[in-house]
Amino acid sequence: MDVAIGLYENFTALDCVGPYDVLSRLPGARVRWVAAERGPVRADAGLVVHAQHAQETFADVPAPDVLLLPGGMAFPNAESDPELIAWVRTAHERTAWTTSVCTGSLILGHAGVLDGLRATSHWAALPLLANLGATPVEERVVFEGKVATAAGVSAGIDLALVLCERIAGREVAEAIQLGIEYDPEPPFATGNAARAPQELKERALGALAAASSAGQ
Amino acid sequence: MDVAIGLYENFTALDCVGPYDVLSRLPGARVRWVAAERGPVRADAGLVVHAQHAQETFADVPAPDVLLLPGGMAFPNAESDPELIAWVRTAHERTAWTTSVCTGSLILGHAGVLDGLRATSHWAALPLLANLGATPVEERVVFEGKVATAAGVSAGIDLALVLCERIAGREVAEAIQLGIEYDPEPPFATGNAARAPQELKERALGALAAASSAGQ
Repeated sequence: MDVAIGLYENFTALDCVGPYDVLSRLPGARVRWVAAERGPVRADAGLVVHAQHAQETFADVPAPDVLLLPGGMAFPNAESDPELIAWVRTAHERTAWTTSVCTGSLILGHAGVLDGLRATSHWAALPLLANLGATPVEERVVFEGKVATAAGVSAGIDLALVLCERIAGREVAEAIQLGIEYDPEPPFATGNAARAPQELKERALGALAAASSAGQ
Repeated sequence: MDVAIGLYENFTALDCVGPYDVLSRLPGARVRWVAAERGPVRADAGLVVHAQHAQETFADVPAPDVLLLPGGMAFPNAESDPELIAWVRTAHERTAWTTSVCTGSLILGHAGVLDGLRATSHWAALPLLANLGATPVEERVVFEGKVATAAGVSAGIDLALVLCERIAGREVAEAIQLGIEYDPEPPFATGNAARAPQELKERALGALAAASSAGQ
């Protein structure tokens, strides 16, 4: 099973490294990191990733079984990143699963994948989905047929584990969850935007923006 | 505040990318990826990471404020990776915080950092801590003075958020938790080894080993 993670400048690393460390543990899975051009791609806070041997391009991986798009503060669309959008649109025709984490769902929306579907995103970007043909829903992981979207950043771990269950069955998914010791203990009760005061939301967005600019 | 993530071949990416995407959002933080030599370092399932401009070496970053060691299936010690162990031992003398995720605590142990301290690790490696001078404890995050250890893989997110609180206060840490939308919904109740049957543990270890060899 080919899993392709579509990269672009200023993606958020945890959005895709969470799912990567889950999906790479699926029997027979091969996770590939792909981008418009060969070479390293920089994440929003300075980390640079590329593939094991050489970066693969979208043209090298036209039809992955699983497509996963991380989010970020960059919000690529058809004008700013036509190669990415074209790859998503074409690959989606043949995927078994088309997935996103955080604002990666906006990229799916720009590619026309979310037309008429319920979808989620990072809480701060959720309303934008309505302009892209989707119905925004405040859920952590949303499956609509073969399209799955996750909420912000850390939600990709939850999405990937559910996806493992759909692909390989519950026993495999349960073992992977134990393998990554996913028994979370969030220190605060502030992870959910629906229960967060406006002032906290503003500070959260400020911290995200500051880290992104520091990573430039 | 300089945060240094110490890399070595076959580290587990999520162990440090979780903390990276938390700590990089601390005001004034700079996260640096360092290794024995310049150039890319491969994670256990194929991802390759390096620093923003050029990989920094241990010699370039002798005294970070925060030292963070990811784990992996590799278990480096003073014989297999003397540069790493020497860097940890020396850097620890001047850190504000010395931290690890997963089997990264074994590296701290080999460097003599855990002598007489309570510490945790990936559940499968926990007993090994006793041979390295530490008292193994089945907790997700363990603070002992300036030394903090986390349980397996995903526990680095929890550790990093607690560390943010200690460094910058609760308001900042709460905002970062909301920024990464850390309101986890693990799909199964299998993340905790203390409650897992032996058969599930064996399957979990099998999945970890298979992914590591596939990434070679």
